[in-house]
Amino acid sequence: MSQHSGSEIDERSGPKTERGRRTLRKLLDAAGEEFGARGYHETAISHITTRAGVGLGTFYVYFKSKEEVFRALVADMGVRTRHALADAVKDAPNRLEAERLGIRAFLEFARANKSLYRVVMEAQFVAPEAYAAYYLVFSDAYRQQLSQAAARGEISKGDDEVRVWALMGASTFLGLKYGLWENDADVDAVSEAAADLMINGLAPRVKNGDAT
Amino acid sequence: MSQHSGSEIDERSGPKTERGRRTLRKLLDAAGEEFGARGYHETAISHITTRAGVGLGTFYVYFKSKEEVFRALVADMGVRTRHALADAVKDAPNRLEAERLGIRAFLEFARANKSLYRVVMEAQFVAPEAYAAYYLVFSDAYRQQLSQAAARGEISKGDDEVRVWALMGASTFLGLKYGLWENDADVDAVSEAAADLMINGLAPRVKNGDAT
Repeated sequence: MSQHSGSEIDERSGPKTERGRRTLRKLLDAAGEEFGARGYHETAISHITTRAGVGLGTFYVYFKSKEEVFRALVADMGVRTRHALADAVKDAPNRLEAERLGIRAFLEFARANKSLYRVVMEAQFVAPEAYAAYYLVFSDAYRQQLSQAAARGEISKGDDEVRVWALMGASTFLGLKYGLWENDADVDAVSEAAADLMINGLAPRVKNGDAT
Repeated sequence: MSQHSGSEIDERSGPKTERGRRTLRKLLDAAGEEFGARGYHETAISHITTRAGVGLGTFYVYFKSKEEVFRALVADMGVRTRHALADAVKDAPNRLEAERLGIRAFLEFARANKSLYRVVMEAQFVAPEAYAAYYLVFSDAYRQQLSQAAARGEISKGDDEVRVWALMGASTFLGLKYGLWENDADVDAVSEAAADLMINGLAPRVKNGDAT
């Protein structure tokens, strides 16, 4: 999960050569490590270039500033997170099963990408519009999936915008607690307990006087 | 909600006189406004004392440093948030109804206390141990409430630690989206939609072959 090919970088506006894409990837990976470990304010561009093994001049071929590489990193992390989740749920037979697999994949992703998790959180303060975009892009796709699943009867009908934000929040906090803080937590058990809560929250409603 | 008496400050270690408690309250409220508006790094102690209308010397009677007032503010916000929620749910007849009232109260609290919300989020980077303590204190009390409710049969049995973190995350993200970003969102409608998701996630399970 922490190694990536250049294929995840937007090819329309990105470098035109394979070598250029590799250099950009090295810079983004190095930026993720440095920003994640030191925080934005303590990170210098020279930390990033040293870790990436490139010269300072090379950095400026790709980015104008520390802020610009930070924003590019947040966008890149959004792409990587969405790819990881889409890959994990691609064989799910229905939406509830996709939720179960998605929670588990997110916890594993957070644990394997601790630096990246911290970068997105810090983006709230360093690059608020990049932070908002990260969740808006994610929530748009997620909302469509819930709407389509509700239309198929796989989940109850409801306010999908509200449900998406509640579900993203739940996963984010579980990622913080069990992905970052508690390394020894059993990801399977946590995922099942969380899926139980979320899946019953989304499941088609059984009409029954006993249920409050 | 934005005006507070000194009574919410811990009286064991806090100022001994009513006047001292009022000054401390003024400093904390001013710190909340300044840190919330400028962020930690851009805030100077003189910003806080100017807004509070006290001299710099007075500040140092109460706090050693900018970091110390920030940590005290995060702890104070935890107390205020818990009081607001406890007050909102105190007449709830059962846990599911308490969840419904709690979500609504949290959204209203986030909207009325935008600065404070931002301070807690920034604490992740500025004072990570204060951030962790904020959620650990909150989650301990919440977990006990779920355990007791499960013992009474008001909610399903489950892993209460996982459920608490999922529910705190859901509320936090809904607070961000509908409390801070979308001022014109209908808090009632959002609360009902969120409560529907969470309450069905927590409700006693109806045994039925139709439910996946």
